[in-house]
Amino acid sequence: MNNAMPSSFVHRFGISRFLLPLLVLLTVSCATVDVVQSDPVERQDGPKYVFYFIGDGMGMAQVKLADAVLENRQSLVMTSLPFSGTATTEAEDRYITDSAAAGTALATGHKTSVGIISKDSRLSGNLETVAEMARDKGMQVGIVSNVSIDHATPACFYAHSESRDNYKEIAEQMASSGFDYFGGGYARGDLEGGRPVGRIVAIMKGSGYRVIEGWKGFNEVPSDLKCWAFESYDSNGAIDYAIDREPDKLSLADYTRKGIQLLDNTNGFFLMVEGGKLDWACHANDGATAAHEVVDFDFAIAEALEFYRSRPAQTLIVVTADHECGGLGIGNREVSYGGDITLLRHQQISAEEFSEKVSRWSKRKQVSFPMALDSARVYFGLGDTSLDKALLLSRAEREELKKAYSASMSGRSDTSLYGKGDPLTVTLTRVLNRKAGIGWTTDSHTAIPVPVFAIGAGAEAFNGFYDNTDIAKKIIEAAGLRR
Amino acid sequence: MNNAMPSSFVHRFGISRFLLPLLVLLTVSCATVDVVQSDPVERQDGPKYVFYFIGDGMGMAQVKLADAVLENRQSLVMTSLPFSGTATTEAEDRYITDSAAAGTALATGHKTSVGIISKDSRLSGNLETVAEMARDKGMQVGIVSNVSIDHATPACFYAHSESRDNYKEIAEQMASSGFDYFGGGYARGDLEGGRPVGRIVAIMKGSGYRVIEGWKGFNEVPSDLKCWAFESYDSNGAIDYAIDREPDKLSLADYTRKGIQLLDNTNGFFLMVEGGKLDWACHANDGATAAHEVVDFDFAIAEALEFYRSRPAQTLIVVTADHECGGLGIGNREVSYGGDITLLRHQQISAEEFSEKVSRWSKRKQVSFPMALDSARVYFGLGDTSLDKALLLSRAEREELKKAYSASMSGRSDTSLYGKGDPLTVTLTRVLNRKAGIGWTTDSHTAIPVPVFAIGAGAEAFNGFYDNTDIAKKIIEAAGLRR
Repeated sequence: MNNAMPSSFVHRFGISRFLLPLLVLLTVSCATVDVVQSDPVERQDGPKYVFYFIGDGMGMAQVKLADAVLENRQSLVMTSLPFSGTATTEAEDRYITDSAAAGTALATGHKTSVGIISKDSRLSGNLETVAEMARDKGMQVGIVSNVSIDHATPACFYAHSESRDNYKEIAEQMASSGFDYFGGGYARGDLEGGRPVGRIVAIMKGSGYRVIEGWKGFNEVPSDLKCWAFESYDSNGAIDYAIDREPDKLSLADYTRKGIQLLDNTNGFFLMVEGGKLDWACHANDGATAAHEVVDFDFAIAEALEFYRSRPAQTLIVVTADHECGGLGIGNREVSYGGDITLLRHQQISAEEFSEKVSRWSKRKQVSFPMALDSARVYFGLGDTSLDKALLLSRAEREELKKAYSASMSGRSDTSLYGKGDPLTVTLTRVLNRKAGIGWTTDSHTAIPVPVFAIGAGAEAFNGFYDNTDIAKKIIEAAGLRR
Repeated sequence: MNNAMPSSFVHRFGISRFLLPLLVLLTVSCATVDVVQSDPVERQDGPKYVFYFIGDGMGMAQVKLADAVLENRQSLVMTSLPFSGTATTEAEDRYITDSAAAGTALATGHKTSVGIISKDSRLSGNLETVAEMARDKGMQVGIVSNVSIDHATPACFYAHSESRDNYKEIAEQMASSGFDYFGGGYARGDLEGGRPVGRIVAIMKGSGYRVIEGWKGFNEVPSDLKCWAFESYDSNGAIDYAIDREPDKLSLADYTRKGIQLLDNTNGFFLMVEGGKLDWACHANDGATAAHEVVDFDFAIAEALEFYRSRPAQTLIVVTADHECGGLGIGNREVSYGGDITLLRHQQISAEEFSEKVSRWSKRKQVSFPMALDSARVYFGLGDTSLDKALLLSRAEREELKKAYSASMSGRSDTSLYGKGDPLTVTLTRVLNRKAGIGWTTDSHTAIPVPVFAIGAGAEAFNGFYDNTDIAKKIIEAAGLRR
């Protein structure tokens, strides 16, 4: 990981894009800007290996949230990248976007309406994606996500559909994409009642894809074969949250590394990697789980940076987000300046997985409130003052938890208090978030502009403040993807 | 004000500082990066005119909040600057900083503890500020703020004190600073019971400063005289919020323009401009007032950009913030994706000023609830469906306002509901914020990293993600301020 980028590096690459405009200025007699754009040497200098990382729901507050689970002085790879900008995210029809419209903007450089996958808002035609452009240029193409591989963000790179909910149609388009590698999640479009039908797997195999699950065959895929590799998945086709992941399960970083290995070839490649579960954790206002997702996403970026080091002049890495989610504030009204973000380290389970436990308790009627408090201590650190005195539960907090426990056990939830989640789980994360000194303004997305980090050939174009559609345009320009 | 910065503008001026390194690269025979860096002409190209803009409490969400009061497609000057980065803000002793520790970091490049003005946390000595370094280099120096000129942020550039609350001591240090220009707010250190004592004015005059209030003499200050110019002020020494400002009052932009005019000389200048009232609006969770403050701050930046255009190769403009305030989310739980941020345009008064009205109502006992609702319509647009149907007050909202009105009139406020503010005012801004689709996690600062925007000589050093202390270091390096 490159934390100490020498400033000479910035200078060297910063210069290239100003090279011709400058010549133009110097050679006053024959200067036009058009000359610059058609220069063949400039084109050859573009990146052959393009990485596009998308943290779903990752605003700057989420990036900072990683502090919660990073040890002292360790920092993220993404924030060490030398070029940086900020992107606005509005959809064509809504100030606060969704992952379909934002994914379309990031994949195609065009605005569309929420819910639409890489088509314009009038549904008059398909919008060509950077991944398709890369494929048509002879580059190999890979798509990685830790949510289902037909979820809105990855779908926007290989599919075109009037609705993100058309999972079957979208999943089928993987097979006809001609892309070389899909990694991470299963296809939600192949799930019925949470169970795999096998139709999409059959279609993929019929189109020449090797389909592998988990570790079985993971290390033996020949790089001349197309491949869809997925890890065991939940009822939505997504792989486990980092905080819940068993050591023997493959991670986003593993699927990224595998992608690099499979796609590497002399014509170059394009690899999109989505950290998709971050968004889900933020929708749930689950701070600790979100912090672990940011770090897990960053491990995937570290894989790309490792590759970059071997071919810096030919590699471009762009890291961004489709939108912020949750209106995360690293500060809250209740503890003001008195919070301690590292308390989030004591949470050992995602809210989602804990709520499944509570759901089982509710059915079996065998878990008393003191037993629930034991679980609060084990899984959230709450009440365990041997870990940290700030984890002490006040009388009011115990009362708050008791009410939530009763609501969970009775199955009668007050959604104005607990949202759509399980009352006890919502309350446990809320109490821990509060002590940690974080807060959320919403359980939906927000319009806060998102960070962009970049390194490599063409990376200096990502400085400044611009629209999310510009990110795709900058990648197209840098890598010479426009036909 | 330059709202429609053509991209060619950014390119044209972005090029200039690459001119020499480029020539070096073009003349291949002698090109190495080391040659570029040690080139003496490059050193001479460092900026002579340095602008340092600090938006107090301005996170990226606050920047985006300006959308609320900008017309369609009009954009901020600061977001048009070509270079950009992000800065972390922690104090030495606290994860969430204050304006003293953050101001010290921004002014000196050193961390300190909260509350301390440009001294180290052990109080073992003064930390030299970039403004003092500029003075010692023979540059002229100016300090502008719309809060009191001895408030933490401006103070950190000319004063050294163990506590930001030592206003008298801090204000006196203006006179001994040797700086050339102070503009904007009055000195809180000269106020007793909200009224001026005159001692600081006398000290300033005794040190050779011309002291002018408002327009009187504003256009006649000779540039060879040192000057302290302030506008009429409140009991804290601050000038009015932009949303409340009478047309005949001087603004932050006016004081910035005046600074440029007074300081311009062949040895160069350093001008720090703080948008300080933004922080106060965010502490009050007063969205509309904060949005107007961002735009007002941006008008001041536009003045610097106007100057930059005449001397692009010798000018550096850096825009940043000391910390975020309020945990602002551009999205909230109550309206989810259904908010309309432009509803904030209908607020015509700051919460602070409105609460003073309510305070008078409370004393006079002559304002009924229906009369208060009239004011809600006039000053906040609330209930005025002729402006926008979304401004309709629901029965629950009228009930909410009625309770708050009663609390305001009785003087018995429930701080858990209304914080430290006037109940009716807090509720009016809360209802309008809610409809507009914004939310706040706190009435204090947060640790969300803050944006940095830059243009001009040395501006490319501000790319990336770094600590707030690095901003001062980058300015020192770019402008050659280190002795």
